[in-house]
Amino acid sequence: MTNRHMANGNRSVRPLAVTMGDPAGIGPEIVVKAWMSSPELAGRQAVIVGDASCIRRAARWLARGGDSWPVMVLSSVDELVDLPPRCLPVLQAVDAAPAPEVGKVSAVAGRMAAQSVVWAAQAALRGEVCALVTAPLNKEALAAADLPEAVYPGHTEMLQALAARHLGLSVKDVPVRMMLSNDELSIVLVSIHVSLSDAIDAVTFEQVLQTIRISDSALRQLLGRAPRIAVSGLNPHAGENGLFGREEIEVIAPAVAAAQMEGLLATGPYPPDTVFMRARNAAGHLGEFDVVVAMYHDQGLIPVKYLGVERGVNVTLGLPLIRTSPDHGTAFDIAGQGRADPSSLLAAIRWALKMTS
Amino acid sequence: MTNRHMANGNRSVRPLAVTMGDPAGIGPEIVVKAWMSSPELAGRQAVIVGDASCIRRAARWLARGGDSWPVMVLSSVDELVDLPPRCLPVLQAVDAAPAPEVGKVSAVAGRMAAQSVVWAAQAALRGEVCALVTAPLNKEALAAADLPEAVYPGHTEMLQALAARHLGLSVKDVPVRMMLSNDELSIVLVSIHVSLSDAIDAVTFEQVLQTIRISDSALRQLLGRAPRIAVSGLNPHAGENGLFGREEIEVIAPAVAAAQMEGLLATGPYPPDTVFMRARNAAGHLGEFDVVVAMYHDQGLIPVKYLGVERGVNVTLGLPLIRTSPDHGTAFDIAGQGRADPSSLLAAIRWALKMTS
Repeated sequence: MTNRHMANGNRSVRPLAVTMGDPAGIGPEIVVKAWMSSPELAGRQAVIVGDASCIRRAARWLARGGDSWPVMVLSSVDELVDLPPRCLPVLQAVDAAPAPEVGKVSAVAGRMAAQSVVWAAQAALRGEVCALVTAPLNKEALAAADLPEAVYPGHTEMLQALAARHLGLSVKDVPVRMMLSNDELSIVLVSIHVSLSDAIDAVTFEQVLQTIRISDSALRQLLGRAPRIAVSGLNPHAGENGLFGREEIEVIAPAVAAAQMEGLLATGPYPPDTVFMRARNAAGHLGEFDVVVAMYHDQGLIPVKYLGVERGVNVTLGLPLIRTSPDHGTAFDIAGQGRADPSSLLAAIRWALKMTS
Repeated sequence: MTNRHMANGNRSVRPLAVTMGDPAGIGPEIVVKAWMSSPELAGRQAVIVGDASCIRRAARWLARGGDSWPVMVLSSVDELVDLPPRCLPVLQAVDAAPAPEVGKVSAVAGRMAAQSVVWAAQAALRGEVCALVTAPLNKEALAAADLPEAVYPGHTEMLQALAARHLGLSVKDVPVRMMLSNDELSIVLVSIHVSLSDAIDAVTFEQVLQTIRISDSALRQLLGRAPRIAVSGLNPHAGENGLFGREEIEVIAPAVAAAQMEGLLATGPYPPDTVFMRARNAAGHLGEFDVVVAMYHDQGLIPVKYLGVERGVNVTLGLPLIRTSPDHGTAFDIAGQGRADPSSLLAAIRWALKMTS
């Protein structure tokens, strides 16, 4: 998918776009922290997409000894070449408005978050930026925004719609999947935000096969070789030969067989309770697989988050652009205090750079 | 539960019973390895329950420099007091027969495994042994055994039936739950070996409340204080206020409230993808809870097994006896080679001793 749709151009000179997220949440401060803590990021071709006054406010919260990093407002990413060191390059992507109050859901903050994403996504689709890293938005604020994008429940659906429009396809022809990764484990989900009961219904031959194909395409690009894809079962012990459920026999095993017929290195279905442990790649524990296709949200997210959420990265697969994001929300409760942890955002930035290199 | 039914007597002098499991599997050799590797176990009041010739054979496989530990056949646990050091005390609990071929399912091996469990369970119910640690049996071999116990699918159901008979109750009045523990995390399951679809149906007010009560009773005995019990949700994000499923609102939250009314330290329902990470108690990471009540098999087993199955212990809660077991099967494929890892059995023995002390 990703390969086929990928815009052409010399990616090595295109900058990375980092959206500021909902400015009432921790987005602006983790973005500023990322720039301040990562000289390599400040020095390279990367741009903050959002609102200059929101970023300037976050920079003031994070000032060291009264000395806050200055904001440089850009009107185009081309202006990055003239950037001085130790400053925050902001592409003003949103309508000017006073910076919204922190910790409060507001339509203005939702609009700013959405406009930042739209600008960055379109820049990525036009080939002007190499990849998109999105700080968290608030779904309620997004829904309240006075914009056509307010109809989307979140980033993923918004990006899918923008990509479909760019490609002249319908949304269903741009199937996307969520990959969650940390240093040890990568998982791709067949379904995400539906009840467990609906998630069982979403385990169909087509959905499982499509998830395997999307995982293969994305990981092949990242690894430079065919990825070893483990496909998890749905039921305990992968159904124990039909004793505790027949989805493995009737749906998952046929989808794995079809993927193998296409030459993909997919195997399974494996018992869910040990496949993630087997895929885990850590010091002294060589993972048997490059990625696990998980049948539902918590099956995959429980092991990815088990050793700490601050290390998790969310990667949207299937889009004609590269998009990663931190594995946490807007954290309105601690926004504006300067103590939000930028680790997951930094990991998302590292992943995006790895995927574009 | 456990407290109420517990047989009286001075437990400090009663020995621990370790069953040999299916003798065609790795049971006998991990039991012998446990005795040989643990001087404290060899020196203390503990007995192997099974067949002397099967244990003798395993001891020969594990002989060091041609010198295998001798088997001492006991007819009663009272004879343990005269036990010399560096020997294997075997309570001959099964009908004599040639040791069954390793790696093969057989009715004889199934019978030996079942008779060992029956003997040890009855000794525990009579108060002659302080606890029961069971090496794995093979369900197919058990089903083939020429014994009334062949009707039970596994250890848990067999022990439940023996306990009910001992107490003069029906099986449904001795509700049991499986707890899985490692050094970092303990989880108790609402349901075990049913399809995921049936597991959703098993999430009822009564079942969830009963699981919380059983967890409280067992952990209270172990910790000497009221345990902090986290109750997981069923759906992604614990349903996000009913958006992805209503079981949290209609079933789980009321069960947690009822448990709180009884004075138990139960809280939840929590989002499943982070509750296990929050409960994890490791160096540099203080767990927020003592145990997590998980809504279905893989929800709880994925995090418990994630860092390695060799450390997991299975504890059966709700019985009027203490029973632990290693968290693996008979491993017919490597049986008889002397290379099976006794770590999980040793962990099960440590847990049983901790629960009786």
